[in-house]
Amino acid sequence: MKKENFIVLKEENILSIANEKLLKHGCDFRNAFEIAKTITAAEMDGCPAHGLFRLPGFISSLKSGKVNGESNPKVVQIAPVVNRIEGDRGFAPLALNVSYKPLIECAKKNGLAAAVIVDIHHFSALWHEVEYLALKGLVGFAFTVAKPVVAPSGAKEPFFGTNPMAFSWPRIKGNPVVFDQASAAMARGEIMIAAQEGSNLPQGVGIDKNGNPSKDPKKVLDGCQLTFGGYKGSSIAMMIELLSAGLIGESFSFERGEKDNNDGGPTRGGELIIAINPNLFGDENNWHEHSELFFTKLMKLEGIRIPGDRRIKNRENSKINGVKVSHSIFEKVNQL
Amino acid sequence: MKKENFIVLKEENILSIANEKLLKHGCDFRNAFEIAKTITAAEMDGCPAHGLFRLPGFISSLKSGKVNGESNPKVVQIAPVVNRIEGDRGFAPLALNVSYKPLIECAKKNGLAAAVIVDIHHFSALWHEVEYLALKGLVGFAFTVAKPVVAPSGAKEPFFGTNPMAFSWPRIKGNPVVFDQASAAMARGEIMIAAQEGSNLPQGVGIDKNGNPSKDPKKVLDGCQLTFGGYKGSSIAMMIELLSAGLIGESFSFERGEKDNNDGGPTRGGELIIAINPNLFGDENNWHEHSELFFTKLMKLEGIRIPGDRRIKNRENSKINGVKVSHSIFEKVNQL
Repeated sequence: MKKENFIVLKEENILSIANEKLLKHGCDFRNAFEIAKTITAAEMDGCPAHGLFRLPGFISSLKSGKVNGESNPKVVQIAPVVNRIEGDRGFAPLALNVSYKPLIECAKKNGLAAAVIVDIHHFSALWHEVEYLALKGLVGFAFTVAKPVVAPSGAKEPFFGTNPMAFSWPRIKGNPVVFDQASAAMARGEIMIAAQEGSNLPQGVGIDKNGNPSKDPKKVLDGCQLTFGGYKGSSIAMMIELLSAGLIGESFSFERGEKDNNDGGPTRGGELIIAINPNLFGDENNWHEHSELFFTKLMKLEGIRIPGDRRIKNRENSKINGVKVSHSIFEKVNQL
Repeated sequence: MKKENFIVLKEENILSIANEKLLKHGCDFRNAFEIAKTITAAEMDGCPAHGLFRLPGFISSLKSGKVNGESNPKVVQIAPVVNRIEGDRGFAPLALNVSYKPLIECAKKNGLAAAVIVDIHHFSALWHEVEYLALKGLVGFAFTVAKPVVAPSGAKEPFFGTNPMAFSWPRIKGNPVVFDQASAAMARGEIMIAAQEGSNLPQGVGIDKNGNPSKDPKKVLDGCQLTFGGYKGSSIAMMIELLSAGLIGESFSFERGEKDNNDGGPTRGGELIIAINPNLFGDENNWHEHSELFFTKLMKLEGIRIPGDRRIKNRENSKINGVKVSHSIFEKVNQL
């Protein structure tokens, strides 16, 4: 991002811009506020690809009528440790917010629990949900799929979504350890931003529509992304399809693509969240200290970074100095 | 493997050789039989790195007294959906065998369940355990760590084990879909076999002891392996450390390395298994057919292979034609 091309916004500015635009275009208060918080958190954490950049997509889907801005998600317990959240065709943030209480209570009591979230439109990062679980003392996993834009290993056509998987580990002192990684070599939002900024992609991120490797973000967006780590990343992408679609009766990436109205917003689908209570896994009195020893040893290695640390540093910095938002994105948002 | 350097063995030959050698060196009948079955299954599936090649290591650890060949694993329910299996300092296969019944019953009833296996020495692939769960109609995950031989992304020293993660998906018709992949770019057993055979490694598998990239398997064994897919594979390796050590009160890779007597056999540690009953996740009547549609579409793409299919083909072929075992490995086993 070139220096002259951004403006600096404070947390409350981002929250109120997002909230206002969402209310204006048909979200009710609860939905607007949960989405605005998610967008703001992404900006604060230094992930513009999930921040205000996504707001036009949210609003496109409100305008087209694909997504219900007044959704009222409901929780149904469908098995002793499984809750199903009916998303009511809404955006994910409110459904997630509704899922937490029963998920956390169930995991705390039983050791392990799942939240099956269906009939939602997820357009955000997944670290929000797993970080929240870790802040409540739980280990968290989250999985979801999206439109088919990634070729399975060996193929040259899109079939998987970028298929993120997020994981969190709670810590008594300090912030949870959190990763949230696409099984695509690069998140699609980052490729879209590279295309807007005219910068090149690293090798191995994608192929053009003829199946040839390309570093041009526009050609890759027209062609197809690749998984990280070859066939191993492809296996993980497949696992994520099975967990967040096959298992829970929601759409696979290929079905999301078929059913979507291509309004620029998120496709309809589901998400699987699993929570683990480490106090019930046999090392109640020591797991915290034991895992801190692991992190201490890990951090002593030269060149090491703990997943999620950069986001936390960005967050702290954003609280003091505000967030740099690309001028072109800010203009687009203001025109909404 | 060069043509003149192997002999062909039948399933029952492999089983009886392994069983006999294990009994001779201090395993009781139950332990010997479970280990021999695991070794045989690896050979049948075309994975010699987990087959007879490992038998000298099993026996070294019996001879050194590190591992209890007469272990008597016990199951203790420690939370509503968590069973802990005390491995009694034995090899993993018997402890796994003991874990299945309570794990499967608990997952079938509650939707989700975990088996925490501690105080074991795991020297096999993980696909056995997850395949077993899938054959019982469950989705399975398994995670374990080992000696530190893999550098976290950014570092040049070993800290993680090869840290495999296995996943299985049940199918009514045909074999389960199973993957079992090290978070190292290559399984250590394969590098050891390359070193024995004098063949080169692909780029990106490891570095020598000075931290320089190397294709020489001996230099990589002296130096350090790398994770698959850069920092994303490294995040997964870290997750596996936290799940199969931090969570369950067992040793991290760095602790396994510190405590091990280096007899050539497996280190002491734990394993986490998670089982999911897809009939309790909200799509009881359709998930089978729906996921078959996914596999059918996936298989239509040019260049695609479903994880686990090659092993199943090898298994079928081995039943008819027997298994090719390297002559040098066969000789070593015979001399035990």
